Amino acid sequence: MIDATQVRALLAARRDNHSLPQPFYTDEAFHRFDIDAVFYNEWLFACNSCELRTPGDYLTLEIGTSSVVVVRGQDGEIHAFFNTCRHRGSRICTQSAGHAHRLVCPYHQWVYDLDGTLLHARQMPAGFDRDAHALRPVHVEIVCSMVYICLADTPPDIARFRETVTPYIAPHQPARTKVAFEMTLIEDANWKLVIENNRECYHCAGNHPELLATLVEFALPDDPEGSADFQRLMDDKARAWDRYGLAHRPADGGNEFRCIRLPFHRGAVSFTEDGSPACGKLLGDLVEPDLGSVRMFRVPNNWNHFLADHIIHFRILPLSATRTALRTTWLVHEDAVEGVDYDIDKMTAVWRATNDQDARLAANNQLGVASIGYTPGPYAPSEFMLRNFTNWYADKLTGYLDAHDDDLARARRTIGLRVSNG
Amino acid sequence: MIDATQVRALLAARRDNHSLPQPFYTDEAFHRFDIDAVFYNEWLFACNSCELRTPGDYLTLEIGTSSVVVVRGQDGEIHAFFNTCRHRGSRICTQSAGHAHRLVCPYHQWVYDLDGTLLHARQMPAGFDRDAHALRPVHVEIVCSMVYICLADTPPDIARFRETVTPYIAPHQPARTKVAFEMTLIEDANWKLVIENNRECYHCAGNHPELLATLVEFALPDDPEGSADFQRLMDDKARAWDRYGLAHRPADGGNEFRCIRLPFHRGAVSFTEDGSPACGKLLGDLVEPDLGSVRMFRVPNNWNHFLADHIIHFRILPLSATRTALRTTWLVHEDAVEGVDYDIDKMTAVWRATNDQDARLAANNQLGVASIGYTPGPYAPSEFMLRNFTNWYADKLTGYLDAHDDDLARARRTIGLRVSNG
Amino acid sequence: MIDATQVRALLAARRDNHSLPQPFYTDEAFHRFDIDAVFYNEWLFACNSCELRTPGDYLTLEIGTSSVVVVRGQDGEIHAFFNTCRHRGSRICTQSAGHAHRLVCPYHQWVYDLDGTLLHARQMPAGFDRDAHALRPVHVEIVCSMVYICLADTPPDIARFRETVTPYIAPHQPARTKVAFEMTLIEDANWKLVIENNRECYHCAGNHPELLATLVEFALPDDPEGSADFQRLMDDKARAWDRYGLAHRPADGGNEFRCIRLPFHRGAVSFTEDGSPACGKLLGDLVEPDLGSVRMFRVPNNWNHFLADHIIHFRILPLSATRTALRTTWLVHEDAVEGVDYDIDKMTAVWRATNDQDARLAANNQLGVASIGYTPGPYAPSEFMLRNFTNWYADKLTGYLDAHDDDLARARRTIGLRVSNG
Repeated sequence: MIDATQVRALLAARRDNHSLPQPFYTDEAFHRFDIDAVFYNEWLFACNSCELRTPGDYLTLEIGTSSVVVVRGQDGEIHAFFNTCRHRGSRICTQSAGHAHRLVCPYHQWVYDLDGTLLHARQMPAGFDRDAHALRPVHVEIVCSMVYICLADTPPDIARFRETVTPYIAPHQPARTKVAFEMTLIEDANWKLVIENNRECYHCAGNHPELLATLVEFALPDDPEGSADFQRLMDDKARAWDRYGLAHRPADGGNEFRCIRLPFHRGAVSFTEDGSPACGKLLGDLVEPDLGSVRMFRVPNNWNHFLADHIIHFRILPLSATRTALRTTWLVHEDAVEGVDYDIDKMTAVWRATNDQDARLAANNQLGVASIGYTPGPYAPSEFMLRNFTNWYADKLTGYLDAHDDDLARARRTIGLRVSNG
Repeated sequence: MIDATQVRALLAARRDNHSLPQPFYTDEAFHRFDIDAVFYNEWLFACNSCELRTPGDYLTLEIGTSSVVVVRGQDGEIHAFFNTCRHRGSRICTQSAGHAHRLVCPYHQWVYDLDGTLLHARQMPAGFDRDAHALRPVHVEIVCSMVYICLADTPPDIARFRETVTPYIAPHQPARTKVAFEMTLIEDANWKLVIENNRECYHCAGNHPELLATLVEFALPDDPEGSADFQRLMDDKARAWDRYGLAHRPADGGNEFRCIRLPFHRGAVSFTEDGSPACGKLLGDLVEPDLGSVRMFRVPNNWNHFLADHIIHFRILPLSATRTALRTTWLVHEDAVEGVDYDIDKMTAVWRATNDQDARLAANNQLGVASIGYTPGPYAPSEFMLRNFTNWYADKLTGYLDAHDDDLARARRTIGLRVSNG
Repeated sequence: MIDATQVRALLAARRDNHSLPQPFYTDEAFHRFDIDAVFYNEWLFACNSCELRTPGDYLTLEIGTSSVVVVRGQDGEIHAFFNTCRHRGSRICTQSAGHAHRLVCPYHQWVYDLDGTLLHARQMPAGFDRDAHALRPVHVEIVCSMVYICLADTPPDIARFRETVTPYIAPHQPARTKVAFEMTLIEDANWKLVIENNRECYHCAGNHPELLATLVEFALPDDPEGSADFQRLMDDKARAWDRYGLAHRPADGGNEFRCIRLPFHRGAVSFTEDGSPACGKLLGDLVEPDLGSVRMFRVPNNWNHFLADHIIHFRILPLSATRTALRTTWLVHEDAVEGVDYDIDKMTAVWRATNDQDARLAANNQLGVASIGYTPGPYAPSEFMLRNFTNWYADKLTGYLDAHDDDLARARRTIGLRVSNG
C-alpha cells in the first residue's frame, strides 16, 4: 500500500501549471491510490439512461477491480449494485449488458430482486438472515439522462453540476434517444494522460485533420489565439442561440466540470467529414440543424458533445497505471431509422479517426514520461483546462488523504490493506 | 515480503464458516506466502507411480518457482530432486516427462546419477568436492501408488493418512494401472477457490448436467438434504459393499483429508454420460462393476475418484494469485486395450465437461471477490467441507508463522527475502 | 524501492568465484536497482557510428524505461538526448531509426535542433524561457567508431579503455564499414545470465557445433586446458601478427573490459560454417585474410569480434528481471557489394545459430535459478571471466550504494522514489 507521506511530498513538490511528477503517471501503487481516492470516491459517468430502457435491462462496468451492475428496476428507477454475490463472492451478471427478470447468481442460484433484495437462497439454514445479505448498493444520480454512479459511502455533492448543465443539455432531449453505435478502445496510457489529451486542442492542428474540418480549435469565445474571423463567427452564432433561447456562454464549473456551446466552422453543422448533417432527424423537437455543440466535461471520466442531430458520450475507465478503456457512444433520436435518417459510417468516421489519433498520442506521451529524462513541463495558455484538471486532481488526493490519514496509519500498522476494503 | 502482522490480523478477523477475507484470494504477496507456508511445506500429490514404470522414467512439475524432477531410480525406488544444477543453477530436465539413463545438465554436462549423486563435473579443479554438490533431494512418499512429494526440510506426518485411506483404495489396485488420458487446464482463479469449488456440490444442480447424470449430490450417507430414495440407495449399496468387504463409511481425516465410498445413481456404474461402464476390463482383480466411487481428497492439491473400472486423479498447482493449473489423469487396468476395452472420448467426456464448467465458475468467483463490494459470506450446510478447508488453511498459516516468526523478523531486518530461500 | 541494507547484506553474503545469490537474477526490485546503479550509471554501447552516416540520421534505444535518441548533428558530431519532449513529456522520435532535419515532437510540434536546442515552441507565452527547455543531453564517447553513451550526470572514466583497445581494433578500420545485417533477439533471462553465458566457452562443446567449427574454445594463449596443438597454432599466429604489427596479447582491462586477438582453427579464417571468408573485400586496407579475431568485451552490455573481413557487435539491453534484448550487427567494408563480395546467409549463419542456442541455455538457467533449490555454485577455472564480471558487478553496486546512501535514506523517508528521478 502507498505511503501517504510519499504522495503528500510529491503533491507539495508539484509545480502549478505544469504536468504532474512522473509517478502519478507511471507507478502502479500510485495508480491503485487513484482508484481509491478518485474512482471509488467520485461520481462516474456510466451510460445514457436510454441504454436501460425497459425494467430488467442492465449493463456492467469495471471500476478498478470492482464490477458494478446498473439496472432498471420494476419501479422504473435505475439502480446500481456491486456485481458480487453475498454468498461466496461470485460475479452475478457475467455479460457487459443484458436483460434479466431477477439477478440470479450463476454459481449457487441465489436470487436477488432488481432492487437488490435477496429473495431466495436455497439450502440456507433456518435463521439465515436474508435481509443482511442484500446486494451492496452503489449510488445513482441521473443528470439529463446521463447515469452517474458513486461507489463511496458518502458521495460528493452533484447538485451544482446538475443545475448548471441542465439548461445547456435539456433542449437536446437526451432522454428521447437511442444508441446508434458504441465502441471501446483500449489506450496504452494513464487515465490522466487521456484526460489531458482531451482537454486541449493545442495538438489538433498537427494531428486531427478530420476533426478540424468542422471543429474550431478555440475553447473560449474570447480565446486570445482566436482570429477576427472566429470572433465574427462566434458573435453571429451567439446572437442566433440567444434568439433560440439556448444557453451557450461558458458555465462556471470551477475545476470540476465545464459546459459551453461552441460553433462549428462556418458552413458545417455536425461532426462529419464534410460538415453536413449526420442524422436527418434532429434530436427532440429541434428544428434548427446548426446549433454547434454543447461541450460538457466532468471529472474524472466523462466528456460529451450535444449537437442538433446526435449526441456523443465519452467514458473512460482506468485499467492499470498505463492502460485506459475509452467507450464512445453515438446517440440519435429514438425514432431515427438507420439507413434512412443516418449512416453509421458517416456519423462515426470523424471521432473514430480522432480517437485513434489521440490513442497514439497518449501512448507516446506515456512512453516519454516514463523516462528519467522526463521533467514536468509548462502548459501553454491554450492548455488552461489541464491546469484546472491537475489542480482538481491534487485537491482530490489531498482531501482523501486528510479524510483518511487515521485509517491509513492504522491500516499500515495492522492490516496493510486498502482502507476501503469491505 | 509479506508482513506477518498483516496475515495474523486478517486471520484473527476471519469469520468461521465464511469465505476468506479478500487478500487471501487476490493479493500476489499473500500468494507468495501461500507458496512458502503451504506448497513448500506440505505433501503434494505429484503423479501415479505407474507413470514412472521403468528406471530412468521421470516427470517434472513446478511448485511455485521451483521445478522438481521425480524419477524412478535404478534401485526401482522413486526419488525426487530440485531440478536445478548445483553448478550455475540451470534446469536439468527441460521436458515435462521423459526417460534418462543419467541426469545430465544441458548447460555444462554435469552428470548426476538417478539417485542425485554428482558423478562427473568436467574441467572442475582438483579438490572440487563432488559429494557436496549432489542434487538437493525432495521427500517422497508413496501411498497406494500415489506419489506425494514434500519440499520442506522436515515434512509433516503422513502415516495417519496412509493407514486410513489404504483400506478404501487398495482393492482398486492402483499399482496395476496405466494412464489412458491426461490433460491440464489453466483456471483463472486462486487455488483456494479451485479447492472450494471442488469441495461442494451445492453448485452442481445449476451447472453440471453431465456429472449429475451419474453422481449423487450428497456428500455423506446421512446428508440431511438427502431424499428417502437416496437413503434407500445408500443402504442397499452399503450392504453390498459390506458383503464384498469394501470400506465405505466416512473416514476420520479431520480437516486434512477425506475418504468415503459413495454410490452412483441407481443403474449407473461409472462416470459416463449414460452411466454405463467406461472400461470393459475392471481394475485389478475386481469382478463387480458397480462399486460406486471412492472419493479421496487431500489438502492442499489433490482429489481422486476410484471406480471399479478406472481411476481419476486431479492435481492442482498454483501459478499466481489468480491462476491455477489443474491436471487430470484417467487410469485403467494396465492390460486394458484402447479401442477394445475403453474409448477415451467416452471415458473422459463427463469430467472434461465438468472441469470446463468449474473453471468458468471459479474464474467468475475470482472476478467477484476482487471487488470492494465483496464481503466474506456464509457457507451453506452442504458446504461443510469448505469450512474444514478454510480452517485447515488458517491453522496451516498460523503454524507457519509461529514456527518462522524469528526468521521472518530477522529476514525483514536484514535481507528481506523469503526465509526458505537457499 | 529497494532497501540498501538488503543489497549490502546479500553482497556481503556472496561467495567469491560463485554465481550470484538468487534475487540478483530474479527479483524485479533488484532489477530496477540494476537499472539505476548500472545502466543509468555506466557507458553503454549504442551502435557503430557508421549507422549514423549523414547529419540527421538517428536511432533510438531503450535504457530501462528511458528512451534515448542518438543523432548525427549538422556539425558532423554524434549527440545523444533523452527522447522526451520538455513540454509534456511525449516521445519525440517514435521509430527505432530514421532521418530528420530537426527533431519535432509529434504531439504539439515543439521543434528542437539536432544539438538539442529548443528552436520553436508555438503558442508559448512571452517570457517563456526556451533555453531552459532544451533536450536533456546524454554523454557520448566514440571509441574506434563504437558509440558509447552514458546517462549519468558524471560518467565514469573511459580513457583507459579507449587507449588500451584502440591498437587492437584500429587496423580493422571500423569507421569505413556499413551494416550488412542486424537482428534483435529477446532472451528470457536476466541480463547478467546473458553476460555470464557469453563470458565462457565451457558450455561450447555441448551446445555450439556451428561455432566450434572455427572458434577455438580457449580464452587465453596459455590456457591450461589448451592442447599442444593449440599451443603450436597460437605460437604460429602470434609470430605472424607480430610481423604485421598487430596487437594480440591479452590487454589488462581488469574486470571492466577484455581485449585479445585469438586465432581460428587451422585452415579457418572467418565465422562461417566451413571457415572460408565471409566477405571477399577485406576491411579497411587489410590484405591478409587470416587475422583471427579481436575479441573485445566491455561491461555491462557489449562484446565484439573484429575479423579481417567483417565485424560483429553484440549489444544487450535489459527489459525486466527475466528478459533481455540482444542486438547483433554484422558490418563489412563500406564498398563491399552484397551478392558479389558477401552473402548475408553465409556470413550470419554461425552466430544466428549460436545466439539461438545461447538464448535457450540462458532461459533454462533463468528457470533453474528461480528455484528454492538453487544455491550459488562454483565457477570452473575456464569461467574465470565470470568471476571478473560478478566481482565488477558487486563493486559497482557497492560504489553506487556508497555514493547514494544519503539520497536513498532521504528518499525512503520522504518520497520513496528512485533518487535519479528528475
